[in-house]
Amino acid sequence: MGPHPAVAAIRLAVRRVLHDLLTEHHRTAAALPHAPSHELSPSSRLRSSREVPPSPPLVLVACSGGADSMALASALAFESPKLGVRAGGVTVDHGLQPGSDLRAAEVVLRLRELGLDPVDSVAVTVGRAGGPEAAARDARYAALDIAAERHGAAAVLLGHTRDDQAETVLLGLARGSGIRSLSGMAAVSGADGRYRRPFLELDRQTARKACMVQSLPVWDDPHNADPAYTRSRLRHEGLPALEKALGKGVVEALARTAQLSRDDADALDSWATQAEATVRDAAGLLECAKLYALPPAVRRRVLRRAAIAAGSPAGSLFARHLEEVDRLITGWRGQGAINLPGKVVARRQGGRLVIRQG
Amino acid sequence: MGPHPAVAAIRLAVRRVLHDLLTEHHRTAAALPHAPSHELSPSSRLRSSREVPPSPPLVLVACSGGADSMALASALAFESPKLGVRAGGVTVDHGLQPGSDLRAAEVVLRLRELGLDPVDSVAVTVGRAGGPEAAARDARYAALDIAAERHGAAAVLLGHTRDDQAETVLLGLARGSGIRSLSGMAAVSGADGRYRRPFLELDRQTARKACMVQSLPVWDDPHNADPAYTRSRLRHEGLPALEKALGKGVVEALARTAQLSRDDADALDSWATQAEATVRDAAGLLECAKLYALPPAVRRRVLRRAAIAAGSPAGSLFARHLEEVDRLITGWRGQGAINLPGKVVARRQGGRLVIRQG
Repeated sequence: MGPHPAVAAIRLAVRRVLHDLLTEHHRTAAALPHAPSHELSPSSRLRSSREVPPSPPLVLVACSGGADSMALASALAFESPKLGVRAGGVTVDHGLQPGSDLRAAEVVLRLRELGLDPVDSVAVTVGRAGGPEAAARDARYAALDIAAERHGAAAVLLGHTRDDQAETVLLGLARGSGIRSLSGMAAVSGADGRYRRPFLELDRQTARKACMVQSLPVWDDPHNADPAYTRSRLRHEGLPALEKALGKGVVEALARTAQLSRDDADALDSWATQAEATVRDAAGLLECAKLYALPPAVRRRVLRRAAIAAGSPAGSLFARHLEEVDRLITGWRGQGAINLPGKVVARRQGGRLVIRQG
Repeated sequence: MGPHPAVAAIRLAVRRVLHDLLTEHHRTAAALPHAPSHELSPSSRLRSSREVPPSPPLVLVACSGGADSMALASALAFESPKLGVRAGGVTVDHGLQPGSDLRAAEVVLRLRELGLDPVDSVAVTVGRAGGPEAAARDARYAALDIAAERHGAAAVLLGHTRDDQAETVLLGLARGSGIRSLSGMAAVSGADGRYRRPFLELDRQTARKACMVQSLPVWDDPHNADPAYTRSRLRHEGLPALEKALGKGVVEALARTAQLSRDDADALDSWATQAEATVRDAAGLLECAKLYALPPAVRRRVLRRAAIAAGSPAGSLFARHLEEVDRLITGWRGQGAINLPGKVVARRQGGRLVIRQG
């Protein structure tokens, strides 16, 4: 008899990601002798690769002790020896609740019980920049980055599920800033594609079920149910109401929207990158007539790139700013300079669009 | 003292659309003598345009008797004489409720009281294709098309508000079929841009308020509150819950998403149209290697266009179909033919993708 379907599902998801990693690892290992530091003859290269097999890559799981990441840890523990991968874990103590250090120590214990090694607990100090959720996230990823580098990890697995993805899409939708903010979380992200999200097409219920049938104790973070957090309100009220109105397929539809939007945004960004080179004059200034000829979606991206290059912070540059700059091109009636975040100013001068600081 | 802010807002929205129409009208009128049927010398052209002024364009308002379209009718009635535009109205009797004919007659009366002329009531038979909402919409637009053509109307104004737009975006989101379905309703649509939606950036509350302060009686369609309709559930439960979770700006964010998504989808469609020409071989077959080199977002659109050209109905062709066809290009491992809606089959043969019926 095989494992419970939920357990089979989480293992398959992890196996797929490890396969990708191993393929990349072997490609890298095979390519190594070509690097300048390994000046070996073909024969010695062959011999050396026989004598010193590349050490198996280390994969870390980021684990809060919640159902999603505990399920992920259990699947990684199960699959890694079969594929010749080393498996470790990291838990981050955000220090936001009393006793969070004990909680972290307990998670370390559980990960060790699953056979993971090394297992780290990292305490972080959460700042305030961007609100409580963004600040906690920034601190968490910084800690994970450091842990990954210290151990030379090939990848860090994150337990985000399709439900998390759906919530992220809705949060992006609420910003109303276009399809990039609808594209949710990437399956692969971070420096060198370090972060992998094997459960992005798996629902939360499956992860929870997998923990249950494997008798894994899980911890329910009280923050996840705290209505002070936008994501929590969305999870417990917004999304269920939307499902009631639109039907059960909403989460899946939102996750698919994320993937399609990501591909679309990537394609349009590449177009804008190419277009930007063609709309500048010999002095590097943007020519209004050439900007005018671009499709609005591409022009807006070129303007956004130019504003950011001039020093406008990407996070403060909203659709309404770009609309106003765009009107210097499409609705020119002699209007004055447009102020953008980061003390950047956009003005039209003699058929050219000048975007610069100060 | 000026009009109430709500009344000022609806009038401004209509004035903008009428301005656009008049600009187009004058351009068309000025261009007329160049048409082959008017073979006049420059001087006679000048004289003729002085002697026979072009008749003022007729603008119809589509009116259900509800607050949005009654507000629209009142604003059109107020603005049209000032701009030299003729204003008329059409109401559609869907025959879905007992007494709907009397209701339609009452709307006709009210539109006449506002000074609109001509005013038509058109009875339609609602079919079943695509569900009750789609069937009613199809019947309604067919009736409006006929009325517009009979009267030679330059435009038909529709009362959709920003709230309707937000609902439409969420309905599109629930399909999960990409950014085109997120782009909501266009401000200008239909044959020759016949349909105009002046209230697309105005909220429903403003339209309702404008009716109240002008003492215009409005009719609340019981369908709008009937939880049997998806849109009604969305309006009364889904969207309010989402606003509670995400904040009051959700409707505006959804409407802005619609506009941005529309521009993005247009740009990517134009790219796909261009790309399609470059990926076909001399025999007109799609070359897999060239398809592979396209960005995924563009390739998927090329595949969609090819499937539709081969006879697959656009409305039945979903993202998952195209993903499967895409794997013939990006994940080729000798898989068999893919069946698509409309008895269209996609298969890979000798480095070519063959998509045809049967």
